[in-house]
Amino acid sequence: MKLHGYFRSSAAYRVRIALNLKGLTAEHLPHHLRKGEQTAPDYLAINPQGLVPTLEGDGGTALTQSLAIIEWLDETHPSPPLLPADPLRRAKVRAFALAIACDVHPVQNLKVLARLRQLGLAEEKVTEWAAWINREGLAACEALIKGEQGPFCFGDRPTMADLCLVPQLANARRFGVDVSAYPRLLKAEAAAKEMKAFADAAPDKQPDAE
Amino acid sequence: MKLHGYFRSSAAYRVRIALNLKGLTAEHLPHHLRKGEQTAPDYLAINPQGLVPTLEGDGGTALTQSLAIIEWLDETHPSPPLLPADPLRRAKVRAFALAIACDVHPVQNLKVLARLRQLGLAEEKVTEWAAWINREGLAACEALIKGEQGPFCFGDRPTMADLCLVPQLANARRFGVDVSAYPRLLKAEAAAKEMKAFADAAPDKQPDAE
Repeated sequence: MKLHGYFRSSAAYRVRIALNLKGLTAEHLPHHLRKGEQTAPDYLAINPQGLVPTLEGDGGTALTQSLAIIEWLDETHPSPPLLPADPLRRAKVRAFALAIACDVHPVQNLKVLARLRQLGLAEEKVTEWAAWINREGLAACEALIKGEQGPFCFGDRPTMADLCLVPQLANARRFGVDVSAYPRLLKAEAAAKEMKAFADAAPDKQPDAE
Repeated sequence: MKLHGYFRSSAAYRVRIALNLKGLTAEHLPHHLRKGEQTAPDYLAINPQGLVPTLEGDGGTALTQSLAIIEWLDETHPSPPLLPADPLRRAKVRAFALAIACDVHPVQNLKVLARLRQLGLAEEKVTEWAAWINREGLAACEALIKGEQGPFCFGDRPTMADLCLVPQLANARRFGVDVSAYPRLLKAEAAAKEMKAFADAAPDKQPDAE
């Protein structure tokens, strides 16, 4: 398998964690997003959105969208599971993951922030925008798991929720968000970061890290 | 079951279609998003994001995030299926759905457009922003299914992809996007709109429609 990514892409980071947890290896093919490499025609042919990640299978299949890739990995390599067995618990885990993957990350990704700059927004206001959507989303996530013992988001092992949380907290810090407001999220992050699968997937451990 | 929604919310619209396809009925509880009813404390207690939809089960459970709700409906009421059986095909359907649910809809929802207005953007520029992200996303979706015969997005019956596409096309038209640029998407939409499950879920058929 080949994983098209970028060290700082939090969506690619989610898939790196999933691969590590499943004990799978993939060749990492970095695309420098700030240089626009993800819009090269060859890449658009496998990912028409011009986003990372894309997971290329050995049979020439190309899977896009981090959560679709993670669901596919979980269905084809069930151990260890990244979703609970009970449908209601699965829905809770997915809702948490989607609260980040839909309502936070895409509103502060490179493309959207670049568009804000094009509209004439000063850099300080652009960062404020990114910090705002991170705060909104993380506060909601904190509430979503307030009754969960943990230490992970949902129970005593990582799920798709943790795969989304850890990269998003990294983004939030880059945008200057005071994450101490979210103690339950930090508890889950601490548990995750003790695992080699999470540690090895961190942006600064990637070959293209700057 | 109770579905908390809003006639014009495209995320609630997805779940309305899913319920109809599954032959399930739910009491519809509208929240007027433009009046901010979704931020009432009682509602935030079941949906900390202050978004619609929320599906309340008979046992007092509250499920949030449209795609998590749809996955739950599909797992607990398998017929007719909203995802194919093959893992690779499931990944393709989910990726299409997520390309809309993550990368288009949240970038043009009420909250984000309101924030753009707060930054001093003129109404015309706000609409242009919404049209831009719809065009970007729909063009990618058109490419994602260009090799698919159809008539639906993936095959001869609706999947989660169509549940996301039809409401998003409605949004795109509201923002003045020329959707004739996406003939394959329009083919899928036409097939969907012939089904009562889709027609009955349309915004103008809802009790709170204006």
